[in-house]
Amino acid sequence: MKPKGLLLVLSGPSGAGKGTICQMLRNKLPDIGYSVSVTTRAPREGEVDGVNYFFKTVEEVKTMIAAGGLLEYAEVYGNYYGTPRDYVMELLEQGKDVILEIDIQGALQIKKRFPDGVFVFIVPPSLDELSSRIYKRGTDSEEVIKKRLASATGELAYASEYDYIIVNDIAEKATEKVLTVMEAERYRAARTYFIIDEICHCRKED
Amino acid sequence: MKPKGLLLVLSGPSGAGKGTICQMLRNKLPDIGYSVSVTTRAPREGEVDGVNYFFKTVEEVKTMIAAGGLLEYAEVYGNYYGTPRDYVMELLEQGKDVILEIDIQGALQIKKRFPDGVFVFIVPPSLDELSSRIYKRGTDSEEVIKKRLASATGELAYASEYDYIIVNDIAEKATEKVLTVMEAERYRAARTYFIIDEICHCRKED
Repeated sequence: MKPKGLLLVLSGPSGAGKGTICQMLRNKLPDIGYSVSVTTRAPREGEVDGVNYFFKTVEEVKTMIAAGGLLEYAEVYGNYYGTPRDYVMELLEQGKDVILEIDIQGALQIKKRFPDGVFVFIVPPSLDELSSRIYKRGTDSEEVIKKRLASATGELAYASEYDYIIVNDIAEKATEKVLTVMEAERYRAARTYFIIDEICHCRKED
Repeated sequence: MKPKGLLLVLSGPSGAGKGTICQMLRNKLPDIGYSVSVTTRAPREGEVDGVNYFFKTVEEVKTMIAAGGLLEYAEVYGNYYGTPRDYVMELLEQGKDVILEIDIQGALQIKKRFPDGVFVFIVPPSLDELSSRIYKRGTDSEEVIKKRLASATGELAYASEYDYIIVNDIAEKATEKVLTVMEAERYRAARTYFIIDEICHCRKED
């Protein structure tokens, strides 16, 4: 019997570095499944449908939500973003691991709908470091940066809802730690109990 | 803040190889705490009190049991065996990991009294291999061997009570897997949540 894949949910406050770790994991695990989100916002220059996002109309996304077709979704500044359920479930059934990099609210929605996932909370080594990372990124307006910093402390409190907490001091080291968690999770009794059936049924008859 | 140590409980049917793995772990982790059991049986030649066992009278052990001083105990062929609670708890409080190699009934008693432990079930790759290992060991009488084999299938069913199941095909590899589990368990949210407090309180005031 082939075990199902792991759903690895990487989350944490913005600036914690989950995007960098996610990219490093995908480089190290080229076969890992990666969920493409749906969105109703307009494509930005260079964004490709089915690669960066599945671009949908508001009507289409509302239909998916009503049918339970999204593992999680959010409305942000008037646009919908969500994770398509079927795509992720098919990969897991095939025995393929899937990684999801997602904000805290999204991760908590997924945990309710799919508690078998492995929920990893990435945290910065300090609030000063978090602040410095968000400023360096430079893609957000001053106003957005201030909002994000203000919510960071509140967001950190959600760590207790997760299975694991990994401090992202050096991204390579944090990535190795996530890989260690993924390996250990494969030995979890709930995931490997099928081995017991295999052992008990493979005995040669005397 | 220094985190508490991990209590690693290695268990499984006899012949699964938990003793070998336990010894390999102790070689790789010379600082790991190892619990010395109490027993009421007479010392065998070469056994040293406080090293192999704490040799006690039946009265002494009964007093310990009544006072909740044993994490688990069993009466086997008229002799008591048990794991002293205080010794293990002191090591964990000091931040030291402790390993316990123990039979299934003992492990399940410990799980009730100390659910924060990490419970690893070691299984043989097949029942044929289990049978061959018990015979090769040659320390048991034919009668005892037959009893052990007969109970092996039943014992394997307890795997679902554990946190992890590790197949011991090659002992070195199985030992590495246990080390991976120990590392991952250090990142468990329940064990590392103190980091969140540290992050939130170490911010320099502007």
